[in-house]
Amino acid sequence: MIIVMGPEATQEQVHVIMNKLTALGLKVHLSEGATRTIIGIIGNKQLIAQLPIEAMDGVEKTVSVTVDYKLVSREFKQDDTIVDVGGILIGGNHLAVMAGPCAVESREQLLQSAFIVKEAGAQFLRGGAYKPRTSPYAFQGLEEKGLEMLAEARAKTGLKIVTEVVDVESVPVVSAYADMLQIGSRNMQNFQLLKTVGKTNKPVLLKRGLSATINEWLNAAEYIMSEGNYNVVLCERGIRTYEEYTRNTLDLSAVAAVKNISHLPIIVDPSHGTGRWNLVRPMARAGIAAGADGLMIEVHPNPAEALSDGKQSLTPENFELTMQEVKTIAKVMGKDMA
Amino acid sequence: MIIVMGPEATQEQVHVIMNKLTALGLKVHLSEGATRTIIGIIGNKQLIAQLPIEAMDGVEKTVSVTVDYKLVSREFKQDDTIVDVGGILIGGNHLAVMAGPCAVESREQLLQSAFIVKEAGAQFLRGGAYKPRTSPYAFQGLEEKGLEMLAEARAKTGLKIVTEVVDVESVPVVSAYADMLQIGSRNMQNFQLLKTVGKTNKPVLLKRGLSATINEWLNAAEYIMSEGNYNVVLCERGIRTYEEYTRNTLDLSAVAAVKNISHLPIIVDPSHGTGRWNLVRPMARAGIAAGADGLMIEVHPNPAEALSDGKQSLTPENFELTMQEVKTIAKVMGKDMA
Amino acid sequence: MIIVMGPEATQEQVHVIMNKLTALGLKVHLSEGATRTIIGIIGNKQLIAQLPIEAMDGVEKTVSVTVDYKLVSREFKQDDTIVDVGGILIGGNHLAVMAGPCAVESREQLLQSAFIVKEAGAQFLRGGAYKPRTSPYAFQGLEEKGLEMLAEARAKTGLKIVTEVVDVESVPVVSAYADMLQIGSRNMQNFQLLKTVGKTNKPVLLKRGLSATINEWLNAAEYIMSEGNYNVVLCERGIRTYEEYTRNTLDLSAVAAVKNISHLPIIVDPSHGTGRWNLVRPMARAGIAAGADGLMIEVHPNPAEALSDGKQSLTPENFELTMQEVKTIAKVMGKDMA
Amino acid sequence: MIIVMGPEATQEQVHVIMNKLTALGLKVHLSEGATRTIIGIIGNKQLIAQLPIEAMDGVEKTVSVTVDYKLVSREFKQDDTIVDVGGILIGGNHLAVMAGPCAVESREQLLQSAFIVKEAGAQFLRGGAYKPRTSPYAFQGLEEKGLEMLAEARAKTGLKIVTEVVDVESVPVVSAYADMLQIGSRNMQNFQLLKTVGKTNKPVLLKRGLSATINEWLNAAEYIMSEGNYNVVLCERGIRTYEEYTRNTLDLSAVAAVKNISHLPIIVDPSHGTGRWNLVRPMARAGIAAGADGLMIEVHPNPAEALSDGKQSLTPENFELTMQEVKTIAKVMGKDMA
Repeated sequence: MIIVMGPEATQEQVHVIMNKLTALGLKVHLSEGATRTIIGIIGNKQLIAQLPIEAMDGVEKTVSVTVDYKLVSREFKQDDTIVDVGGILIGGNHLAVMAGPCAVESREQLLQSAFIVKEAGAQFLRGGAYKPRTSPYAFQGLEEKGLEMLAEARAKTGLKIVTEVVDVESVPVVSAYADMLQIGSRNMQNFQLLKTVGKTNKPVLLKRGLSATINEWLNAAEYIMSEGNYNVVLCERGIRTYEEYTRNTLDLSAVAAVKNISHLPIIVDPSHGTGRWNLVRPMARAGIAAGADGLMIEVHPNPAEALSDGKQSLTPENFELTMQEVKTIAKVMGKDMA
Repeated sequence: MIIVMGPEATQEQVHVIMNKLTALGLKVHLSEGATRTIIGIIGNKQLIAQLPIEAMDGVEKTVSVTVDYKLVSREFKQDDTIVDVGGILIGGNHLAVMAGPCAVESREQLLQSAFIVKEAGAQFLRGGAYKPRTSPYAFQGLEEKGLEMLAEARAKTGLKIVTEVVDVESVPVVSAYADMLQIGSRNMQNFQLLKTVGKTNKPVLLKRGLSATINEWLNAAEYIMSEGNYNVVLCERGIRTYEEYTRNTLDLSAVAAVKNISHLPIIVDPSHGTGRWNLVRPMARAGIAAGADGLMIEVHPNPAEALSDGKQSLTPENFELTMQEVKTIAKVMGKDMA
Repeated sequence: MIIVMGPEATQEQVHVIMNKLTALGLKVHLSEGATRTIIGIIGNKQLIAQLPIEAMDGVEKTVSVTVDYKLVSREFKQDDTIVDVGGILIGGNHLAVMAGPCAVESREQLLQSAFIVKEAGAQFLRGGAYKPRTSPYAFQGLEEKGLEMLAEARAKTGLKIVTEVVDVESVPVVSAYADMLQIGSRNMQNFQLLKTVGKTNKPVLLKRGLSATINEWLNAAEYIMSEGNYNVVLCERGIRTYEEYTRNTLDLSAVAAVKNISHLPIIVDPSHGTGRWNLVRPMARAGIAAGADGLMIEVHPNPAEALSDGKQSLTPENFELTMQEVKTIAKVMGKDMA
Repeated sequence: MIIVMGPEATQEQVHVIMNKLTALGLKVHLSEGATRTIIGIIGNKQLIAQLPIEAMDGVEKTVSVTVDYKLVSREFKQDDTIVDVGGILIGGNHLAVMAGPCAVESREQLLQSAFIVKEAGAQFLRGGAYKPRTSPYAFQGLEEKGLEMLAEARAKTGLKIVTEVVDVESVPVVSAYADMLQIGSRNMQNFQLLKTVGKTNKPVLLKRGLSATINEWLNAAEYIMSEGNYNVVLCERGIRTYEEYTRNTLDLSAVAAVKNISHLPIIVDPSHGTGRWNLVRPMARAGIAAGADGLMIEVHPNPAEALSDGKQSLTPENFELTMQEVKTIAKVMGKDMA
C-alpha cells in the first residue's frame, strides 16, 4: 500500500505514521517530492488492510497496490480451472451451454423445454424453482415441486440441472436435486450464502452482481473457495448503467479481463444481459468470441405464455439457430462441446 | 398497462392479443394511430404483471402505468408514519440522530463513543456487531460479544440501539439485544431476510441498495410490511455512479421523492454516502434541508485507530459541531429532537 | 404519445387537456381505468413533441410511443447503407479496419505506423492531428502539420485517412486532407459541428458520446443527415459506468441494437472502449461477432514511446495477430475485406 | 506519479524504466516489496503526464499523486473567489439567484417572467435564446431576437442577464447582450468554446457535464482561466445515473467537494438536476445547506404552456415560496442577498 500525504502534511505527521507502522512490524519507504511526501508500506497484507490510515492526520489518500483475493487469481494458479459437473466439463477447450426457461412453470412446460434444448445440443437444463422477485406479489416459483420436475427432466434427457439457491435454508434441498447451484445477482454479496455453498461439494455458478465491480465479484468467489469448494464458474449477466434500451449492459470486457486475472471458467448470459430476445443471438456469438467458456440462455417452448421474462426468451427455432452460429464461432476459438 | 404494437403489427396480431386479454377477464381499449396501434389494459394488477405480453407477436413494448407496491404508498396512507422505537419517535416533526462507530471494536471504544454521541444529543447508538465485508479476510465483527457491549452501552446511557442483521440466522439473537434492526445495502434484496424481519415486531431501518432504484427500494419495504411489520424507516446512503471522488453519490433527491410517494420516514447516512469525513457535515445539513427525518453518522473516539471506515468517521469535536448546525437547520424545517 | 393522469386527477382536468389537444388538430383517445385515466394522442409528431404536457394540471407522466429520429431509422430505409470512402466500402458484407496511432506525433512515427497497418490489411489510417484533452496543459496535437503527414502517408500507402475534426473552424482544413471526418465522443452533441459536417459531402465517423443513450446517438446522426449528408458511420467506443478496471465499458449490445433499428453501418473501437491493450484482441473479435461492420484500433510502432494512450495501443505483432483472428470471425459472419 | 510494477517484472525492466526517467531529468525512488516493486517519480508534472509509462514493459499500473489543474485549486488561491457580475457579487457570503424560463419564447412571456422573479428577489434573469436540443426537429430558440428580448427585460427590471452560448460563432453576439455567459452541460468539454470565452472578460457560468467527474469539470474551468478569464462560477446540475425517477441525479456532494478543493463559487440548478418541479423546492434548500453560493431555477408564468421543460418549471407562487425558504436557510449559512 502507498500513502500519499497531503500538501500541508508536517514532518511530525509523517513521523507519527511511520513510527506507528514500524511498531506493527511493517517495512516503510519514504519518498519526498517537491509537493508531496509518499510512504510505501510492505508487509502482511491482511494486517495492512485493516489499518485506518486514511483517517490519520496529514494523509490525503492511500493507494492499494495489490488485490485482496488470492485463491481465485492467476498468480495463485496458472492453468485454467476445468470444473466437472457430473461428467460435463466447463473451462479449457470445452464449450458449455445451459438453457431452459427462466422459471419452472409446469411439468409439461419443463419437459418440453428440456427436450428442445437437449435436441439443439445444450448439456445443462436451467430453470428457477425459487425465484427472487422485486415485488412480493409476483410469482415466486414452484419451490420443491419445481425441483422434482427438474429431476424428472434430467432422468428423461440426461441433461445436468443448474438452478438457483436463494437462501441458506434451501441449500440442502436444492443440493439434493441439482447438479450445480446458481447464486443469483442479488445474492452475490450474501456472504452467509456464499460460505454455505462453499461448504458443500456442489459446483457453483456465481452470477455477477447488478453493480458489482470485477474485483468485488472475484472476492465473492474467494468467499466460496476459502471454505474449500474450488468448483466455481463465473457468469457475466449484464451490469446496471444509464442506458435504457437494454435491460442491462452486457459487459463482455469483463470476460476478457477475468481470463487475464483469474483461472476460473466464465460463461455469459445474454438473455438477462440484454433483456431482449432479438439481441440474444448476436451477444451469444460475441460472448464466445470474447473468450467465454459457455452460455446460459433462456429458451421457452412458447415465450408468449411464459410466467417470467418471456420478453427475453428464445423460441425453439431461434435457439437452434443460435446454437449453430455459436458452435461455428466456438470452433474458431478452439472450443468444442463434449 | 399499455401495449404499444410495432409499426408492422397486423390486425390479426392485435386481435389475438385482445382476445387473450378479454378471456382473462381484463378490459381493453384500442387506439389506432397513423403509425402505431395502442392497447390499454384495465383490471387486476397482479394478474397483468404476470403476463408475458412483450413476447407476444407484434408487440413492441409495454408501459406500466401504476406502481407495484401498495402498503408503502401515500395513496394507501396519506399521513406521515411515525415509528416509535422504545419511546423515541422517528418521522413527522421529530428529528432522529443515530451515531456511533462503524463497527463495535472493543468495550472501551464503544462506551466512549456512546457517551460522546449521547452528550452531543443523539438518541440512538449505532455500531456493527456483524459486518458484511467484500473480502473474506477482512474483520467481520465481534458478533454476539459486540451485541452484549451494545446492550451495556444502552444500560449506561439510555441510548436506543440500532445494529445490522446480516442473515436470517442471526435475527433472533440481534432482536434479543437491539431496539431497531438495520438491513444493510447489500441485503436490500435478500428477500428471505426481509420476510423474516417482517415477521418480528422490531422497527426496521432499511438502507437503500447500492444500485437500487427508488422503486426497488420501496418494493423491498413492501416485502417487510406485507408480512405485518409496519415499522419501517428508510435510509438513503448513496448510490454507485461513475464519480470517483466520493465513495458513493448521496442521492438527496431520493429523500424528497420518497416524501412525495410514500408515508414512511426516511433518514440520511452522509458517512457512507460520501466516504469522506470532511463532506459529512455539509451533507448532514443538506439532508435535513431536503426533508429527511434524521441522520445516521459515523463517530469514533479516534478515527485514526478505527478497524473499519475510519476515513469517513467524525471526531467527537466535529460531531458536536455537526449536531449544532443540524439542529439549526432542523428548526427551520419545523423539526425538533425529543 | 400517451398521457397518464394522476390518481387524483379530476374530470375537469381531463377535459381541459383534451380540449387543448383537439384545438391543435390532434386526435385523442380516452381510456378510463379503475385507478388511472389515460389519454392517447395521435397526430403531428413534431407538434406533440413541443407540448409541455407534463406540466398540465393532473398529469402524472407522458410516455413516448415513437422515436424522434427519422432518416437514420430502419423504418425509413430497409436496406443496409453502404458508405463509400474513396472506393473502400463500409457496411453490408464489407469489413473495414481503421488503425494507427492515437495522435500523429512525428513524420517518422506516422509513416512507420502506416506501413505496419497497411501490411496487416487495414484500409484506413487513423491518427489525430487535433486532440481534445481533459487538461489544457496536455499535448494538443500537431494540427495542420499533422494533416500534411497524414496526406503523405496516404500518398505512400494508398490508405484512406480518417481523422478527428474538433471544431467548426477546422472543418475546411481537415476536409481538405482527410477522406473521412471523425466526430469524437466529447463532440457527439456539439450540434453546430454536426450541422457543419452535415453540409459537407465527406463521409463522417460519429463516435458515441461517453454517456449517450443509443437514442441520443441516433439523433446526433439525424442532425448530420438532416443537413443532407447521408454518409454516416457510427462507432461504439465504450460508455462510462462505475466499473474501474476498464477505462470505459464497451457496449456491444449497442451494435446489435443499432443493426435492428438503423440502416447505418457501425464499427467498434476496442482500444478506447477498454483502455487496456490486452483486452483489445478479444473485444475486436467480439465486436465483429456481434455484427459490427469494422474496427478502429490503436496501433503504435512503439507504444512505450507514444505521446498519447500508449497503454491501449497494440504493438505491430499484436495487431497482425488481431487481424488474423478478426478475419476468421468476419468470414463466419459473411463479411470480407475489399 | 507512482509506478507499480507487475508481479513478474524483471530487474532488467525496472532498470530500463529508471534509466529512461532519469535521462529526462526526473528523480526516481525505488521501493522493493515482497510481491511488487514500486517506483516513485518526482519532477516536472507536465512532462510526466505525457509519458506513456503504462505501455512500458513490466508496468502494471501508474497512480497519479497530484491533480492536473492549478489555477482553480485552493492550493493556488486560499481565499474564496467572489465574481462580480455588473455589481452583483457571487461567492463569499453573497447569495445569488438566477431564475426565469428555460427558453425565451416570446416578449410577453419573458417580460412577465422577469417581473415575477425580480419581485421574488432574484438578481439574475435566465432564459435560453440558443437551445441545444437532442433532436434536430425540436425548438432551437429565438436566437438574436431572444437576446434582444433579454436586453429589454434587463432595461425594465435591472436584472442581470445570464444566457447560454452554444458555439464559438455566437460568442460575440451573446457577449454583446448578456452579463454572464453560460456554458451548457453538453459543451463542458467543447474546448474551443472554453478557450474562446476564456479570452473574453465576461463572467462565465460553467455547468457540469452530464457525466463529467469533478476532476474533468475543474479542468474545464482551468481551460477558461488559463486563457486569462478568472471570473468563473461553477454550476452543479445533476449527473447521469441508472435512477429513472429523476431526470438526473443532483450531486450535492460535489458542491461540498468543490468548496474544499477549489476557491471558485458554485451554484446549484435543482430544476435540471431533478427534472420534476415538485422536487425543486426541497433540493434548492438542500443545495444552499450544502454550501452552494446560489441557485439557478426555472420559473415560467405558465409552465403548462412552456415550449421547453415545462415539467420542471415552478409557477410564480411556488417560486415565491422557494425564495422564502431558501433565504431562511441561507441566513443560517451566513449568506445574504445583495
